Amino acid sequence: MSTHPKRARFIAFEGGEGVGKSTQAKLLVEALAERGIDALLTREPGGTTGAEMIRKLLLAPPGTGWGVQAEALLFAAARSDHVAKAIKPALISGSWVVCDRFVLSSRAYQGLAGGLGDEEVLALHRIGSGGLMPCRTLLLEAPVDDVAKRLRMRDGDEADAIGGRNERYHADVARGFAGLAQGDDSIVQIDASGSAEDVHAAVMREVEPLLEEAS
Amino acid sequence: MSTHPKRARFIAFEGGEGVGKSTQAKLLVEALAERGIDALLTREPGGTTGAEMIRKLLLAPPGTGWGVQAEALLFAAARSDHVAKAIKPALISGSWVVCDRFVLSSRAYQGLAGGLGDEEVLALHRIGSGGLMPCRTLLLEAPVDDVAKRLRMRDGDEADAIGGRNERYHADVARGFAGLAQGDDSIVQIDASGSAEDVHAAVMREVEPLLEEAS
Repeated sequence: MSTHPKRARFIAFEGGEGVGKSTQAKLLVEALAERGIDALLTREPGGTTGAEMIRKLLLAPPGTGWGVQAEALLFAAARSDHVAKAIKPALISGSWVVCDRFVLSSRAYQGLAGGLGDEEVLALHRIGSGGLMPCRTLLLEAPVDDVAKRLRMRDGDEADAIGGRNERYHADVARGFAGLAQGDDSIVQIDASGSAEDVHAAVMREVEPLLEEAS
Repeated sequence: MSTHPKRARFIAFEGGEGVGKSTQAKLLVEALAERGIDALLTREPGGTTGAEMIRKLLLAPPGTGWGVQAEALLFAAARSDHVAKAIKPALISGSWVVCDRFVLSSRAYQGLAGGLGDEEVLALHRIGSGGLMPCRTLLLEAPVDDVAKRLRMRDGDEADAIGGRNERYHADVARGFAGLAQGDDSIVQIDASGSAEDVHAAVMREVEPLLEEAS
C-alpha cells in the first residue's frame, strides 16, 4: 500500500521497435515509486498468463504466418485478457498502470501499416476491452538510423515475426503513429533520440501535471 | 480431380455438443464423393495449423479461463486463418467445403449464451473473414436427454472448457441456435434424434437441390 495514495492513472508508451519504450516505462515506474505511488509495470502483447500464451503465437507464428485480420484479432484477444485481469483490477485498486505498448500499436501496425483500417482496429478494441484508453499515451520517436543502431546492440535478441518485417513496413508504422498523434490530445510525441536520462526528463515533464491533478 | 466438376458449395453443420455433427459431416462428404464431387472435410475451431494452435488455447485455457470477449476474439482469429488458408482456396479450386461448426456456433455460444451480443460476433466475422457465410447451414437438433446419453458413450473424451459448462448454458446455446434459424433461409433445422442413417437421409434431402443447381 502506498502511504500517499493518488488517483489511479493509466500511461502507455508507444513507438516503433528499439525506440526505448521498455527502458522508459521502467524509469517512470521507479520515479513514481520515489513519490510513493504504486504502479503496475506491464507490457503488450502479454501481461497475463493467457495473453503471454497468445504473444507466443503472434511472435513465432506457424507456417506462413498470420494474415493481418487474424493478427489483429489475436492482439485484441490478448489485450482483452490483459485489461480484464490486470489493468482494470490495478486501476480499481488505486494503482497506476504503466504499459509498454497498448492499442495505438495495433492501430499503427495492423490498422495502418498492415492495411486493415483504423476503424476496424477500434471496433475490435471496443468489443474486446470496452474501448479502454490510456489517460496519456507517450509516443517515443527517433530517427530510423538511431533505432537501427540500438537494435544491433541488443544482445541475443532475435528478430520476431513482427519486428523482423522490412524497412518499408516500419517506416509505414512510424508514419502511422505520427498521423494518429495529430488531433488527439491524449497522445504526446516525445523526441527519443537523446540519452535515456534526457528522454526520461521529457517523460516526467508530461507526467508531472497528472501527478498534480491526481494528488 | 473430380471427373464431374460441380460449382463449389460451402455447407456447415451446427448444433450443440454430442448432436452428431462430425458423423453427419463425414457421411455427407462420403455421399458427395460417390457422386464424383470433391469436398474438403474440416472443423472449427481448427482446420489449419494456426487455428489448431488457437483451438488448444480455447479448449484448455490458462488459469481462470477466458472472458467471453477474449473467447470470441480467439474464435474469430482461428476462423480468419481457416477461411483464408483452407476454406477460400478450396472453394476457389472448385471443391465443396463441409465444415463441422462455423460462425453460427460463435453467435449461439459467445453472442447469445455468453451475452456478448449477436451484432458484436457478426462484426468480428466481418473484420476477420469478410463475413463469409455458408451456402447452407444444417442445424442438428435433438432432445437434451438423448444428447446427454450420447456424450456419456464417448470413450475417453474429457469435457473441454466449453463443452464442460453447465446445463443452463447449453440450454441457452440450444435456444440461441433455434432463434437464429428463424427468419434465415440459409439455416435448416434438422431433427437429429433418430439413427445416423435417418439423419443422413434428412441431410441429403436438403443437399440434393444444391447438387441440381450446381450441376
